[in-house]
Amino acid sequence: MTTAFLGPRGTFSEEAALLRAETGDLAAFASFPALVSAVETGLADEAVLPIENSIEGAISTTLDLLIHETTLRITGEIALPVRLFLITAPGVGLPDIRIVTSHPQPFGQCRRFLDRCLPGIEQVAALSTAGAVKDVMESGDLDRAAISTARAAELYGGAILAHDIQDVHTNVTRFVVLAENDALPTGDDKTSLAFRIREDVPGALHHILGELAAENIQMTKIENRPSKGWLGDYIFLIDFEGHRQDAQVARVLDRIRERCSMLKIFGSYPRFPLESLRGSIDTEQSID
Amino acid sequence: MTTAFLGPRGTFSEEAALLRAETGDLAAFASFPALVSAVETGLADEAVLPIENSIEGAISTTLDLLIHETTLRITGEIALPVRLFLITAPGVGLPDIRIVTSHPQPFGQCRRFLDRCLPGIEQVAALSTAGAVKDVMESGDLDRAAISTARAAELYGGAILAHDIQDVHTNVTRFVVLAENDALPTGDDKTSLAFRIREDVPGALHHILGELAAENIQMTKIENRPSKGWLGDYIFLIDFEGHRQDAQVARVLDRIRERCSMLKIFGSYPRFPLESLRGSIDTEQSID
Repeated sequence: MTTAFLGPRGTFSEEAALLRAETGDLAAFASFPALVSAVETGLADEAVLPIENSIEGAISTTLDLLIHETTLRITGEIALPVRLFLITAPGVGLPDIRIVTSHPQPFGQCRRFLDRCLPGIEQVAALSTAGAVKDVMESGDLDRAAISTARAAELYGGAILAHDIQDVHTNVTRFVVLAENDALPTGDDKTSLAFRIREDVPGALHHILGELAAENIQMTKIENRPSKGWLGDYIFLIDFEGHRQDAQVARVLDRIRERCSMLKIFGSYPRFPLESLRGSIDTEQSID
Repeated sequence: MTTAFLGPRGTFSEEAALLRAETGDLAAFASFPALVSAVETGLADEAVLPIENSIEGAISTTLDLLIHETTLRITGEIALPVRLFLITAPGVGLPDIRIVTSHPQPFGQCRRFLDRCLPGIEQVAALSTAGAVKDVMESGDLDRAAISTARAAELYGGAILAHDIQDVHTNVTRFVVLAENDALPTGDDKTSLAFRIREDVPGALHHILGELAAENIQMTKIENRPSKGWLGDYIFLIDFEGHRQDAQVARVLDRIRERCSMLKIFGSYPRFPLESLRGSIDTEQSID
């Protein structure tokens, strides 16, 4: 079993893939389309792609791949808190640090920690969070620290000096797992699909959502993407609770199909227990 | 009357601002937040911001400014086809060209034209489409061409050698105009708003869209953005036909408000006649 992820190693994407593939192999690929091709051609059995971040919103590259480019199914989801760490060579202490290095984005995400604990320190940009740790460890310098993931510290032999230094503790990225087939029902599942409503039918979207409401099915997300045709012509993406093999979901899908000019089911898969993250994040916030 | 736009001059943002401010002054600002501050502080009377592209989708920076950062109102909208031109010094012909320069994005958007009419030509990156024309004109070289806007050709004295060289002829960007107050009713208006539904009310979004359907009000767009709180906690943005001073729209707004934990009306403004663009773009496509 091989799980493909967006490289390089030591990033949040690898952390998500590790959660998925505890006993299998990982393979890094350089782009989102490469991940899809890897599974389609048998280079990998499944691929982990970020689809949504709680601060930045939808990751449209992944949505557009699902809509336009592949018949792979969503077979699972993973939600991963974005946790950032201050990483140095072993034995280095806070007063030793003269330079902090990271990808530009984490500097902005750790502003409060940097202002409080490393005020006025020199900041040097790196190509990735993982690369920042690699640079620090390979340089042998004892006055440099990296802002990065716990996984990168582990990979390159860095020591974690401070944990959870990000300003926002509810920053979570959701990943989907793509494979040839979606998952069997577990009793706690979600279904994702895309559709295009028939043009010029007033209230068409309202009627489609009404089909879900009539079966008491909880919608967890609604999104749109341009059809890439005319401005204002959208493809809607919805997630809702239940598996497409459930009788009531199957009924709703049949009824929705009649109202759409296009319907593409991305798959049914076990719901990730978001509430399990909530506990740990709330604790961190109360310490903050 | 001063209209602020995202600089530099010669970009599509300036073209949109020119459509708006035929008789007024234009002022370039360096970022989206700067445009908002310019109007809030009286440096400008209104600001033009891109909000949606027919290929790329929503421009989330603009949506988040409207949701979180400002009480400015949407007072108008402009839809502008993304038209790209091959621009040289006057008198230069196609066989003279050895180098083409532009921002990296337009190279990808004009691949077919470049493959057909300038195969194998050297491509040199510039910081912006407008900067590309400036570079070509200031260099005095007669073997260089820029891919850019008609406005940039005009500003820097370039000659248009070929027009509408973009692969996709339905690529349209929609801009909103922000000001202290929204617009008076014209009889052909749109209203934009954001809301957050009460948590854990199944079908809440369906009921809100039902209020629009019950009054026969056509929704033209629905979008979501993360609330920036917990993953899965969204703010919905909808556009629909009608002005908030219309009796039926006012009734719907009252009813929606009851179902929301937050409701923010971005404004009512004259609808841009998209169908006027459709004619000209369809003609271009039939020539293609």
